[in-house]
Amino acid sequence: MTTRRSLLATSLAAPLLASLAPRPGQAQTAATALVERREYAFQAYQTRGGATLPAVRTGYQTAGTLNGAGDNAVLITHFFSGNGQAFGQVAANAAPGWWDSIIGPGKPIDTDRFFVVASDSMVNLNAPDRWTVTTGPASTNPSTGRPWGMSFPAVSIRDFVEVQKRLLDSLGVKRLALVAGPSMGALQAIEWAAAYPEMVERVMPAIGTGEMDAWLSGWLDLWAAPIRLDPAWRGGDYYGQGREAPLRGLTEALKLVTLHSRDRGWAAPFNRRAAEGQDPAKRLQDRFALDTALEAAASARARQSDANSFLYLVRANQLFLNEYDGLDAALSRSQARWLLLPSQGDRLFTGDYAAELLAALRRAGRPVAEQRLTGEQGHLEGVTGIAQAGEAIRGFLAG
Amino acid sequence: MTTRRSLLATSLAAPLLASLAPRPGQAQTAATALVERREYAFQAYQTRGGATLPAVRTGYQTAGTLNGAGDNAVLITHFFSGNGQAFGQVAANAAPGWWDSIIGPGKPIDTDRFFVVASDSMVNLNAPDRWTVTTGPASTNPSTGRPWGMSFPAVSIRDFVEVQKRLLDSLGVKRLALVAGPSMGALQAIEWAAAYPEMVERVMPAIGTGEMDAWLSGWLDLWAAPIRLDPAWRGGDYYGQGREAPLRGLTEALKLVTLHSRDRGWAAPFNRRAAEGQDPAKRLQDRFALDTALEAAASARARQSDANSFLYLVRANQLFLNEYDGLDAALSRSQARWLLLPSQGDRLFTGDYAAELLAALRRAGRPVAEQRLTGEQGHLEGVTGIAQAGEAIRGFLAG
Repeated sequence: MTTRRSLLATSLAAPLLASLAPRPGQAQTAATALVERREYAFQAYQTRGGATLPAVRTGYQTAGTLNGAGDNAVLITHFFSGNGQAFGQVAANAAPGWWDSIIGPGKPIDTDRFFVVASDSMVNLNAPDRWTVTTGPASTNPSTGRPWGMSFPAVSIRDFVEVQKRLLDSLGVKRLALVAGPSMGALQAIEWAAAYPEMVERVMPAIGTGEMDAWLSGWLDLWAAPIRLDPAWRGGDYYGQGREAPLRGLTEALKLVTLHSRDRGWAAPFNRRAAEGQDPAKRLQDRFALDTALEAAASARARQSDANSFLYLVRANQLFLNEYDGLDAALSRSQARWLLLPSQGDRLFTGDYAAELLAALRRAGRPVAEQRLTGEQGHLEGVTGIAQAGEAIRGFLAG
Repeated sequence: MTTRRSLLATSLAAPLLASLAPRPGQAQTAATALVERREYAFQAYQTRGGATLPAVRTGYQTAGTLNGAGDNAVLITHFFSGNGQAFGQVAANAAPGWWDSIIGPGKPIDTDRFFVVASDSMVNLNAPDRWTVTTGPASTNPSTGRPWGMSFPAVSIRDFVEVQKRLLDSLGVKRLALVAGPSMGALQAIEWAAAYPEMVERVMPAIGTGEMDAWLSGWLDLWAAPIRLDPAWRGGDYYGQGREAPLRGLTEALKLVTLHSRDRGWAAPFNRRAAEGQDPAKRLQDRFALDTALEAAASARARQSDANSFLYLVRANQLFLNEYDGLDAALSRSQARWLLLPSQGDRLFTGDYAAELLAALRRAGRPVAEQRLTGEQGHLEGVTGIAQAGEAIRGFLAG
């Protein structure tokens, strides 16, 4: 039981599904600093889809110092279920940020040299979390005094970029020495390179894809489906006292995200073992240990998450690069140098997607290098295993 | 609209999700014969898990003639959502069997030479279908006069084999020149080779895996999850007048099966197009064409299927080779020659699973050949694209 618990504690309950303690052997190369969580807000945002939001709020944190030219900035963009806590600790007893192993003084993304910014996405999954500040379906619509729910407009990865752009402008950032992030963070990094090519010197998509094709988009829709199926979802109108959130549907959605984001090696220790005291070979109600463990972890995580925000995040990802006539058209705008960090065992953005992004960057004439991450965590290696790429990142930022 | 409809008609509504008309360019090499559907029943079956079923019924069909020695038999085992209609037509206006392109007079599995048998699995998904005969949760428990529901005992792939064994015994079959099937059919073929090695001369698993590891088993559990989430499921007690079947949950489950069983090329024609009259970039309620098409096809299919049987099929697959101490132990029993037919674009039983089965057969010292299927249907090429392997199958059966 100890083995299973620790497996979950270090690689399931937390990771893709939240910020994460580094794995043993991946300890930070320097002490983790306390960071101050801040908030940036602005009025009257017109979404890329044409709707107007009276106000947008976003949580963020920084490390390092912006130089006079405003050109030593690094933007870190987060994955689907993450938030801006990419580095440092928000409190002494909190887990270090999810990329803390590569961000800090003397680390590959060296905060003695760079001014590093990480913000919470719009429609952030962690809307109920006290450390997350976001604008999305769980936010109050000032014109009704009630949560937006499904009346919140659809937003895209490009909208995430627009909010980040306004935040960076407010901080005096003129140029990004690097924009980098894993998974959905990679999508934001790529979208940045196309949207503001003159601002972006380097791009580092980890466990990314250059294309959200119909097949991937269809998978994301299936991730979201259990939420719509949960009667407690009520068409998105579940906020407020006396109403129950669609936790069962959200739990199933998070189970899909979790398994899809991992590889066989992660599941192997469960080894088709029966859940304690159960016999799945005899009774259909009895289960396997992996299934009940996944259920328990996702259920715990669901209680810190917002179901509608899950649906909006799925849509934002489905709309990746939707303003361009394909990947080549988007990348032809880039003036940056690129470092790609795909994961060898990625079952979500599989090897063919990674290879196609590399090929497209070469077609676009961009300087590009690639380092493959390895390990048993599959897609998630781009979060938990990122320290593997430390030297490659140092080299990329030195050049 | 025509393009999308025909795409669905030829490759979604029917295939993995039922029997299937051959694709253009894969027309049968000889006329499709009418086949007679028969039923075999026997009393008092003790399941591998130790439960006793008062009676077991199975539908089956045959082609060709058994020789005096009873050793020219071929057993065809079906995929997850299929039934025994592997060849021929059950009626003049019915679709040809799902492997009709390779089974018949003069075809690679030549019914002028072989006596070919295909039967409906236990706990068959198509329990409501008039052409399917099965024993499972939708069958009547004679001791209560009501459907078994979730009180039906768990059964395994090995149980499927046991029922097939009794059927073959009843037909006078002494030896199988070949046992072959795609996907779940491959699991049955492998289980046959281990259970009755002296009876099996050749094994041909298409789009198979030698191992149902924790990761794959976990995926199957996620396929089933939406059924349990549907309030109409009622713990499996939804049979009878005035009760609604859990069609929404079953639809979601079938959507997962469908997308998982296909590859990017299948989805590509949808090209992130919006559903007609909708704008997913603006409203969250609006959808993409792939998502609504998948929904429509799976929903139609759900009405011909039984939700509890889906759960029991998942469990049977999760219990693949559960009586052996691993794949090597199971295969060490085989005395057969093997032909493996993996699909290059398989996103379900991915290339690593196929490679490991091949390696395990070599370790076991078995004669084994492999031919890869290619094409845009992914896993499903083992059903819709099986004619690609026609010459390899002829050669395998000639030797």
